[in-house]
Order: sequence, then structure tokens, then C-alpha cells
Amino acid sequence: LDVRGSGMKMTGTGGSPFGMDYEQIPSILQLFPHQQLELQGFHVYGCSQQLDAEKLLHYLSAVLQQLKSLASLLERPVRKINLGGGFGIPYFPNDKPLDIAAIGAGLSTLLEFHEPWLQSTEVRMEFGRYLVGECGVYMTRVVDVKTSAGIRYAIVDGGMHHHLSNAGLLGQVIRRNYPIVVANKMNVSTTQPVNICGPLCTPLDRVAVDVELPNLEVGDLIAVFSSGAYGLTASPVNFLSQPAATELLCKP
Amino acid sequence: LDVRGSGMKMTGTGGSPFGMDYEQIPSILQLFPHQQLELQGFHVYGCSQQLDAEKLLHYLSAVLQQLKSLASLLERPVRKINLGGGFGIPYFPNDKPLDIAAIGAGLSTLLEFHEPWLQSTEVRMEFGRYLVGECGVYMTRVVDVKTSAGIRYAIVDGGMHHHLSNAGLLGQVIRRNYPIVVANKMNVSTTQPVNICGPLCTPLDRVAVDVELPNLEVGDLIAVFSSGAYGLTASPVNFLSQPAATELLCKP
Repeated sequence: LDVRGSGMKMTGTGGSPFGMDYEQIPSILQLFPHQQLELQGFHVYGCSQQLDAEKLLHYLSAVLQQLKSLASLLERPVRKINLGGGFGIPYFPNDKPLDIAAIGAGLSTLLEFHEPWLQSTEVRMEFGRYLVGECGVYMTRVVDVKTSAGIRYAIVDGGMHHHLSNAGLLGQVIRRNYPIVVANKMNVSTTQPVNICGPLCTPLDRVAVDVELPNLEVGDLIAVFSSGAYGLTASPVNFLSQPAATELLCKP
Repeated sequence: LDVRGSGMKMTGTGGSPFGMDYEQIPSILQLFPHQQLELQGFHVYGCSQQLDAEKLLHYLSAVLQQLKSLASLLERPVRKINLGGGFGIPYFPNDKPLDIAAIGAGLSTLLEFHEPWLQSTEVRMEFGRYLVGECGVYMTRVVDVKTSAGIRYAIVDGGMHHHLSNAGLLGQVIRRNYPIVVANKMNVSTTQPVNICGPLCTPLDRVAVDVELPNLEVGDLIAVFSSGAYGLTASPVNFLSQPAATELLCKP
């Protein structure tokens, strides 16, 4: 199934390294019941970082329709179904938060429609980024401020080795700034354009490009929001022998 | 200085987070001699992964000319000069190895010309990738082979978490395959197209795309050459909790 407008596509026409093709499954299901193998159910994962509720529901509807066909080939009801994830979070100015109420309503209707064959089936979904992405804040401190060719730069003590995705290096075609603030200057309203770069000796080490922030000085604390998923664990922590970041779990 | 055709540009028009602008240096040099500070010399770094000897010599010539002007502002000879690196290695089919003899001859002439002001100066260069890049081989084993939509895939036990650069995620605009072989099938001449993907649950985890290799089977050993620089240390080793790669130093 193709899911258009997703941050990342796991399936669709053209082949995929993940799982198996829908067309291959019926012949495999013929092996069941099987003496040595027990069929647990189906796990589907079609996309990630989808912000359009309608597209996500369209995908879930198509998946349930396909699974229903497969289930009809079996002697016993399916035990478990994992419908995957795909629930996105807003990162950039034009991103609208996913309409979770619409998804809830739509999914309710879908599951009601499919109730006849799902009565004894455990249905699960995955919400990794959707649950934790917006909970995480990446913080780094300004260690130097300089001007080159009339452009202002702030150098910070963290960067791509802590937050590869924020540097735009985790599959992004076009790098965009994550939501960012100066934590110790939240009430300062006058801003100026600045480039925030990490300490690594590579032009890839960018924390924010041409962003409008209060005047930066050495010691200022930069906070990058939406850093709770694909953050430290998805970053090259050993690159160029810079100190690692500390992960803190805070009680609200 | 702009160095065209480099793998990565550290300087040039338009501002840079690195070092300081040439125009800023004369006013700083006026501080010397200085009671608390001792001027050690100049460190220049203009580009990386340059394969064109002529462009590299043109750059070195311009740098030496600039440094000569700066040196003339000082009361004492410059102690140390680091001319940086930029010496590239071939990664892709159309890459021609750098003509190191031409660089040697050209640099000899340049240093002879500049000898009057360099007599008591230690001149250094940096060759990180040029020295070690081609010495490293990344090895990973086939754990599964499958076909999806008529396209062949081999899944291996390593990938972008060990070798981010080979996955095309270390600043490459267009991903290209590193030189790759099946180590245990070096004498097999019949090949077929295959995609080699790592074990991570992301389409970014690619080891080789549409590459022609001997028929792959579970257990086969894939070797990726030119992996001695920007390899394991530049990769997100903790991503998705896969085992780390082992680094082995071999005696030739």
C-alpha cells in the first residue's frame, strides 16, 4: 500500500526490504495449521510521520480489508493484528498536528465494521514517535559567537553527534530548523538572524540555519524541541571524540 | 578561498563557522608581540575530498600567498604553518585517484618560491582520510535473501548504524554505492542486480542499491572498501539497539 505524504515509506509499489509482499502470503498461509509452527497473526507497517488523518484512515481501512481477505483463508480466527504506526508530530511551521479525534472516530467505525471477524482478535498499534517525540528537549550551550562575511554564527557545545536528525542528516531531502528557543531569554522579543553550529570540524554540524533568535552570547542555553524521538540513540555519538550528551528523565 | 569540486567546503565566500575571515587577521596580528600570548602560526583548512591535483595546487598556492602577506606584518618569522588537507580518495567508478606526484612536484616548486620567508617555519599538512580511508574494509554478513515486487533484496547484519557514510547519510546529496564485493565469492563472474539492506526498521538502512554481485545466499560475507575513514566513529552505533561492529587492526 502506498501512503502518500508520509515522512517515510515502508511499503508500496516498487519493492521493499521489509516483511513480505501481500501476494506471497496466501501460499504461506496454506502451511497452517502446522505441527511445528503456530500462526500468531499479522504485523503491518506502512509508513511513518504521517500528519494527514484522512490518509492514515484510508491506509488503515485498506489494511483491514486486506487482512480480512487473508483471515478468510484461515481455519481459526487471527489471534493478533498489529496495524503499525505512522502517527506523525509537527516539526516545522507549516506542519499541522494530526487530528487524533478524527482518527479515533474513523478507526471506531472501521473496527465496528470489521467486528465480525475481529471478535477474538487482539488489535494493536504502534505510537513510538507520536508518544515521545514532543516530550524531548535537546539542550546545548553557546561557547562562542562570531561574524564571518557579515553573517552571525554561534558555536555550541553539542550538535550532529547528539542530534543527527536536527542536523538534517537522517534522511531529510531538505534540511529545516526544528523548533528552537534560547531557554534563558524566553522573554526577549527582539531577534536577529543567526546560524548555530556544533563543535565538529565539518560543515554538516548545524543546529539551526538562518534562524531568528534573541542576541546570542557565550553561556546562552539553546533548546531544540520535538527531540524525544530519533535523538541521541540515532546519532553518531563517537564522532570526533566530543563529549556525549546526558539523557535526563524529568517529572512534570 | 573557494575550492571548487571538493567533497566538502570549509571556506569561501558566504561565511563560515570555522576559524576567522582573512580580512579580520591583520588587526589581530597587531596585538603581537604580546605579553600573555605567543603567536604559534597559522592553520588553514579549505576543503576535503578533493581529487583534482591542479585545483589543490591552485588552492595551496593561494594560501601560501595569503600567508606570506600576513607573515610580512609580523616582527618575527612564523613558527608553524598548517596548510590543511583536502587530499581525496576515489570512492565511485568515475573517481580518478589524486595525482600525488603532480602535487609533490607542484608543492616543491611552491615551497622553493616561498623559501625566503619560510626558512625557519615548520610546514605541516593533514592527510587523515588520504592515509587511512582506503585501508579500511567494512564487513557484514547476509542473514536473509528475499524478493519483493520482482526485486532482489539481501538483508545483512550490519548497516547504517556501523557505516552511515556508506548509507549515503553523511552529507551526500546523491547516494552512490561504495566499492563492494562478496568476499567469499571473489572468483564468481556471473552476477545479478541486488539491493543490500541492513537490519534496521528504516528504509534509510541501505548498504548497496541496485548493485551487480554474484548470487547472494545466507552466510555470504559482504565487503565494503574505502571504509577506513568516517566509518564506525561517524555512525549512530546505538541506533535501534543492534550489536556494534568490531574494529580489527590487521598486520599486512
